[in-house]
Amino acid sequence: MKTIDLPEFRVALPDWIESFLPEPDHVYSSDEEKMNLAIRLAGENIRHDSGGPFGAAVFDKNTGKLIAPGVNVVVPSQWSGGHAEVMALAWAQMKLKTHDLGANGMPYCELFTSTEPCVMCLGASIWSGVRRVVCASRDEDARGCGFDEGPKPGNWRSELESRGIEVTQDILREKAVDVLNEYVRLGKPVYNARQNKLK
Amino acid sequence: MKTIDLPEFRVALPDWIESFLPEPDHVYSSDEEKMNLAIRLAGENIRHDSGGPFGAAVFDKNTGKLIAPGVNVVVPSQWSGGHAEVMALAWAQMKLKTHDLGANGMPYCELFTSTEPCVMCLGASIWSGVRRVVCASRDEDARGCGFDEGPKPGNWRSELESRGIEVTQDILREKAVDVLNEYVRLGKPVYNARQNKLK
Repeated sequence: MKTIDLPEFRVALPDWIESFLPEPDHVYSSDEEKMNLAIRLAGENIRHDSGGPFGAAVFDKNTGKLIAPGVNVVVPSQWSGGHAEVMALAWAQMKLKTHDLGANGMPYCELFTSTEPCVMCLGASIWSGVRRVVCASRDEDARGCGFDEGPKPGNWRSELESRGIEVTQDILREKAVDVLNEYVRLGKPVYNARQNKLK
Repeated sequence: MKTIDLPEFRVALPDWIESFLPEPDHVYSSDEEKMNLAIRLAGENIRHDSGGPFGAAVFDKNTGKLIAPGVNVVVPSQWSGGHAEVMALAWAQMKLKTHDLGANGMPYCELFTSTEPCVMCLGASIWSGVRRVVCASRDEDARGCGFDEGPKPGNWRSELESRGIEVTQDILREKAVDVLNEYVRLGKPVYNARQNKLK
């Protein structure tokens, strides 16, 4: 007997992404070019009013090709888990048909993110199987704009490294900070769930 | 010009849940009765071979009614983010049509989980807006079975409390540990993403 209705949980990336991305066979030749895509996704997400000022992307390090993009979709998707890193990782796993991007036979997956992962995305990165996490703006840049990164351990870099995940910071940091500042300057919502209720 | 195909990301809870749950208007009268549901979901998830040994549920504290159930669906959904807490929180937000369960006008939402949240679910709980997190088995119980909880800060309880989220531990702890042990005894996969690759 059916006692409760449980529809599928569905999340979409914004429609503008499909036409925004370069051709699927485009080869990204440097960390800077890869990060530039993540940061431009963050900027476009502001302009299209489709979520928070955060972008991410998963690349195949060996071929230099994009596997999956991601942007923050928290408000439009009505799902607080819809951070840019979570979206890019989920799409990469959907595309590669595995819950473990680090499994044998998988490409060497690297996650580029326009802002260092919050505590949730730190965990999501570890569980995803990615082998490398590359960041632009830092925790303190996000906090400076009013975003809460959550209770991340101070040694989060070594926690990733001890699990076989390489960490690279500060790739195009200033450019990513500019996007965060643009979001705040435009007066868009800086939401932090219950923390805001305590102020 | 469309350059890449980005289908919707879709996640389903296992079919057996709909018939397993009591009537939607059932009133849960105690923390133990609520936790019993989360633990039974974990146990059924093993028996149906539909994911890892973890269950969760979001309740309305004021009415005692279930808002949303969740189980671990990592392997069948091919998504490493599909932990029980993430699923229950996402379904609660889908049902209540908000990314912030702590917003004005929302019920007093409490998350019950059969095992203390990992680092990802710790963050997911904070961002979700729930006002209370109630746990059965402890981090060390999960770690004792080989599950990695990730780099959670040692003071995670006070980190939640400082954000206005009440924490209750050890509700039906032994019963939840029995489920973890059953999973291991059956020889089911204990997956920890890249950590396993380093051993």
